[in-house]
Amino acid sequence: MANFGSDNAAGIHPKIIESIAAASTGTVPAYGADRLTELVENQLADIFECEVTVLLVGTGTAANCIGLATLCSSVGGIFAHSEAHIVNDESTAPELFTGGARQFAVGGSDAKPGLIELAEAIDVVGARGVHSVQPSVIAVSNLTELGARLSAIEVTAYAELAKSRGMKLFMDGARFANAVASGDESPAELTWRAGVDALSFGATKNGAMAAEALIFFNPSEATLAEFHRKRGGHLWSKHRFLAAQFEAYLENDLWLELATFSNNRMARLREGVASSKNASILAGGDGNELFIAMEQDVATELGQRGHTFYAWPSLPKGYRLVTSFNTTDEEIDEFIDDLK
Amino acid sequence: MANFGSDNAAGIHPKIIESIAAASTGTVPAYGADRLTELVENQLADIFECEVTVLLVGTGTAANCIGLATLCSSVGGIFAHSEAHIVNDESTAPELFTGGARQFAVGGSDAKPGLIELAEAIDVVGARGVHSVQPSVIAVSNLTELGARLSAIEVTAYAELAKSRGMKLFMDGARFANAVASGDESPAELTWRAGVDALSFGATKNGAMAAEALIFFNPSEATLAEFHRKRGGHLWSKHRFLAAQFEAYLENDLWLELATFSNNRMARLREGVASSKNASILAGGDGNELFIAMEQDVATELGQRGHTFYAWPSLPKGYRLVTSFNTTDEEIDEFIDDLK
Amino acid sequence: MANFGSDNAAGIHPKIIESIAAASTGTVPAYGADRLTELVENQLADIFECEVTVLLVGTGTAANCIGLATLCSSVGGIFAHSEAHIVNDESTAPELFTGGARQFAVGGSDAKPGLIELAEAIDVVGARGVHSVQPSVIAVSNLTELGARLSAIEVTAYAELAKSRGMKLFMDGARFANAVASGDESPAELTWRAGVDALSFGATKNGAMAAEALIFFNPSEATLAEFHRKRGGHLWSKHRFLAAQFEAYLENDLWLELATFSNNRMARLREGVASSKNASILAGGDGNELFIAMEQDVATELGQRGHTFYAWPSLPKGYRLVTSFNTTDEEIDEFIDDLK
Amino acid sequence: MANFGSDNAAGIHPKIIESIAAASTGTVPAYGADRLTELVENQLADIFECEVTVLLVGTGTAANCIGLATLCSSVGGIFAHSEAHIVNDESTAPELFTGGARQFAVGGSDAKPGLIELAEAIDVVGARGVHSVQPSVIAVSNLTELGARLSAIEVTAYAELAKSRGMKLFMDGARFANAVASGDESPAELTWRAGVDALSFGATKNGAMAAEALIFFNPSEATLAEFHRKRGGHLWSKHRFLAAQFEAYLENDLWLELATFSNNRMARLREGVASSKNASILAGGDGNELFIAMEQDVATELGQRGHTFYAWPSLPKGYRLVTSFNTTDEEIDEFIDDLK
Repeated sequence: MANFGSDNAAGIHPKIIESIAAASTGTVPAYGADRLTELVENQLADIFECEVTVLLVGTGTAANCIGLATLCSSVGGIFAHSEAHIVNDESTAPELFTGGARQFAVGGSDAKPGLIELAEAIDVVGARGVHSVQPSVIAVSNLTELGARLSAIEVTAYAELAKSRGMKLFMDGARFANAVASGDESPAELTWRAGVDALSFGATKNGAMAAEALIFFNPSEATLAEFHRKRGGHLWSKHRFLAAQFEAYLENDLWLELATFSNNRMARLREGVASSKNASILAGGDGNELFIAMEQDVATELGQRGHTFYAWPSLPKGYRLVTSFNTTDEEIDEFIDDLK
Repeated sequence: MANFGSDNAAGIHPKIIESIAAASTGTVPAYGADRLTELVENQLADIFECEVTVLLVGTGTAANCIGLATLCSSVGGIFAHSEAHIVNDESTAPELFTGGARQFAVGGSDAKPGLIELAEAIDVVGARGVHSVQPSVIAVSNLTELGARLSAIEVTAYAELAKSRGMKLFMDGARFANAVASGDESPAELTWRAGVDALSFGATKNGAMAAEALIFFNPSEATLAEFHRKRGGHLWSKHRFLAAQFEAYLENDLWLELATFSNNRMARLREGVASSKNASILAGGDGNELFIAMEQDVATELGQRGHTFYAWPSLPKGYRLVTSFNTTDEEIDEFIDDLK
Repeated sequence: MANFGSDNAAGIHPKIIESIAAASTGTVPAYGADRLTELVENQLADIFECEVTVLLVGTGTAANCIGLATLCSSVGGIFAHSEAHIVNDESTAPELFTGGARQFAVGGSDAKPGLIELAEAIDVVGARGVHSVQPSVIAVSNLTELGARLSAIEVTAYAELAKSRGMKLFMDGARFANAVASGDESPAELTWRAGVDALSFGATKNGAMAAEALIFFNPSEATLAEFHRKRGGHLWSKHRFLAAQFEAYLENDLWLELATFSNNRMARLREGVASSKNASILAGGDGNELFIAMEQDVATELGQRGHTFYAWPSLPKGYRLVTSFNTTDEEIDEFIDDLK
Repeated sequence: MANFGSDNAAGIHPKIIESIAAASTGTVPAYGADRLTELVENQLADIFECEVTVLLVGTGTAANCIGLATLCSSVGGIFAHSEAHIVNDESTAPELFTGGARQFAVGGSDAKPGLIELAEAIDVVGARGVHSVQPSVIAVSNLTELGARLSAIEVTAYAELAKSRGMKLFMDGARFANAVASGDESPAELTWRAGVDALSFGATKNGAMAAEALIFFNPSEATLAEFHRKRGGHLWSKHRFLAAQFEAYLENDLWLELATFSNNRMARLREGVASSKNASILAGGDGNELFIAMEQDVATELGQRGHTFYAWPSLPKGYRLVTSFNTTDEEIDEFIDDLK
């Protein structure tokens, strides 16, 4: 029986549990003034090959919305794809943290905001002055919400649009590891070198317990970020346990090893689905997510056989399959056998 | 060398680490739809001897502010002691979560809001109609911010005042375990039987990693709480790891065992301080916090000998000493020796 | 030269100026505790044939957003047509006043939210629980933003949908006078008898200076409205001058006389446009707004001849024409002559 | 019978009514794009002898809170006297408009924030980092809430403190006209030359209907102010009627004439009170406000004789007397006769 429901359904990688346990004894300063936190900041500076301002938090919604609140005033507008997590899956957290900024959603294939549509939406809003908002942030996801990978050249296109309108570029990287692992572009190339201002760099979905890093590539833009974290209730007193997760996650590139693992499992799964007459691929597959079409009765039967996965109502007869760091080949093969 | 800086400086109790580790394998539903979460809800219902609505979150600020946002509208007023954590130590989180409600701070010994002063403040505000706010919540802490324990009869007095003004009573229980362990009144007697509407029940300071339970004793008042948690970014996707902490924390009354332990260490420390000519006790000592007066040079010397503790500027020549679940008798004795 | 730019471009009706002037001497209590305010409340109760809670404010955005903030919590969702004023023309005022509630926009002809699309949007959101919002308010406009009149039976359909989902029905009545004047249904029939919970009843566009009445038909739902008005900065200290405008506006049905006048001017204008080969009617005409299609060069020429009107980009080659209480037949005839 | 209740109880000066009436015919562009608005901007630039950014609104709360929201982020702190209008009399409007910034109140005689206490409060907050807020604005009132006038040298002291901490200086000038009229310092000397960043310049209490000008002396700081006005619902569509009030108010220094008049009436009233054995002067008298102490029975008897004035609970046996542009010598003499 396969569980392709979500990478959130997976647990914690043993090395990360070990790191938490190793940090659990002794007394250290609270609120991030500890050495483990400093170590992680250095690890991230190394990985991204630049000076960074880092804020560790426990959830992706926190990382995204603290980032947006830092880059966008309460009278600002945030432009994203209509499938984006911040648009669809974070309740009104963006409104709360920004003080009431508004999101504008556009279309585009593979949950990549269409560049022309994006520019048009920004310009329509911008032309309306105080009757609308001040266009402030373009937000993209990598992987996108439909499992596609943005290349550095694509990111650059969004950045150029943002810069041309005096806006910032934010990247939701809940599955950034999978994006990096599925291409040959470095973390730096996919972010600040392409013009990204801030990134929420996820670990939770890729083997951590509850840990996301909000990374600013231009520290001068981040001066208020720590206040936004605190007032959001996201400054852990025992901050070292956020750091401990990241320390293990980054050490020896565990993050890439786990992402590569789940991406490889997805490649096997994708191949299996592609060879089946009972399903067709709709989107994704670049990383660890695949979106497929199945008839209702096929899906029902797979469910009855114990496989877990979710419908994706915005796609026709759509379903989402997600692999994770603990997906097994057996699960995949069993699912494919049952699908055929 | 003693570390009396904060119970936040302590790590994680071994049983709680074990519980997290035990939960870390396999796949379970995300966002709290797992069996461990259900188990914890049942444990808490048993401990409090009533039906409860429980929300687990990672920080005390989150528990407090989601609770306040649930009980208090954006045009409401929250009345608390001027030393209270929500007044002094949570940035503008209460304003953020409530949408701009205002806190009114009163005095009172031992950081217990003075009842007469409290009633007067409420009535002054209430009489000013729309020019001020709608008095909505009385917030108390147990232990108080100055380490005192509220008895059931004291809590009842606050509850009666709240009810007489159509207000709710909220309790910040970041150190509720220490309060329970230092008296002979049950959790139920100290909360809902005395008239408390909602409690933030802390675990982090008492041996957990990052876990607080926001508990509503009248579930019908809690209908919007889950929305406030989500929009605050505090709904963990791998929610089982909040539950795993609580499961171990509550199992076999570990929470009371740890609180009793730190309270007992405090008793020893208090006795030592009381016998010293170089310090006098100002407040606290009911649980695991003690507030003492020392001359500057005494404090400096203790610091130079490696002891950790913090000045408490609101008290004259004041310093705070906190014991935790991992404080040792050796630390205490060494500190007392150095103090004398 | 005709000015069909907006009814906002018109001035103040002489009777309303006289009423302000008459109220300008002597001393009266501030903040609405005056007799003129009481008189207006009684006038509105008579006109709507029921007990009402009334709040007078200076702008339509204030009336709309104080109303929405009263009916919708910060975790709620507001469902409206994508052309609605609250969606398109009030910056992020709805977010500000509600504390971050989210608007969901649907389509529908004549800027009437399509009932099926509306129900579907509500149900999709409602099914997503805390990941989205709590569906709370359906907001309609009468006249709609495209100049159409909602009949009582249409309003009832929205109300039934709202009630079936536990939601409230709000009506933006910036041009409610024109809606009433263009049919034979009473103010009561078009509002509370059809299930409207609250109405912003406009006067500014129909001859007042700056005056809108926010009316709640179920006073028990309005208990927090006065706080929202005050904290929005919309409680006038010299409140009598809001009341003075309404007193004259309502006295002897001046409001209906003025709306009938501008509706009749629109009838003449519509007839003229209908007979022209250079324009076609796209929408509106029920009240005092008409939406027409013209070729760019026709519009440019009309502008060069001194006529004022605005493009309406959401309609193909669309332009909006608005009449007001001081539109003259000469303006209309001159415009039609130049159009032909 | 005298009415010393509030300058809000007075009506509109005839010249201001005339100006509104004169503007009420014809059609002009909405939302402030009219010539009258431009004229007022020029008048204000002349009066303040510098380039200014001006926003006209209908209430003092709006002017104050749009100003604060422009100068202070949602994570900022605003420091003011505990008697200040923004602290005491505007509900939670400051929280709403700023997105949850916090006010810190200090004492000081005559409702002037004590400079040492102010500096200390700022430094305590500033030292606490993210656990508190970012000190952002010092807010003073001129006249103060207890009727005292700030001199340029006093304003400079606040400005120097603000600048030394990287903060802005905001002035609530609801009765700025009375402050200017009661001294010999120019508007420029009392504001930007002394270091004020923004001023809410009141007209309502001094003869206008509903009109306040929010003035920024450093236009580059005001770029978001218009968005804050719009999202607060304070951008009048028929904006010319805000401008018309100011045009008459500023023309030929009517504002100073009216303020001088009410100040002179206050001088007569103050002299009368000073000569009475039944009252003593507590504060005020610089402009048009006086705070006096009376025994309860004296106050009651004055009330029974038809005089209107209000108790001021924060002063011992305190009552406030306010004169306005339409106070008569007869009122004053009758009141003094009855007082003696």
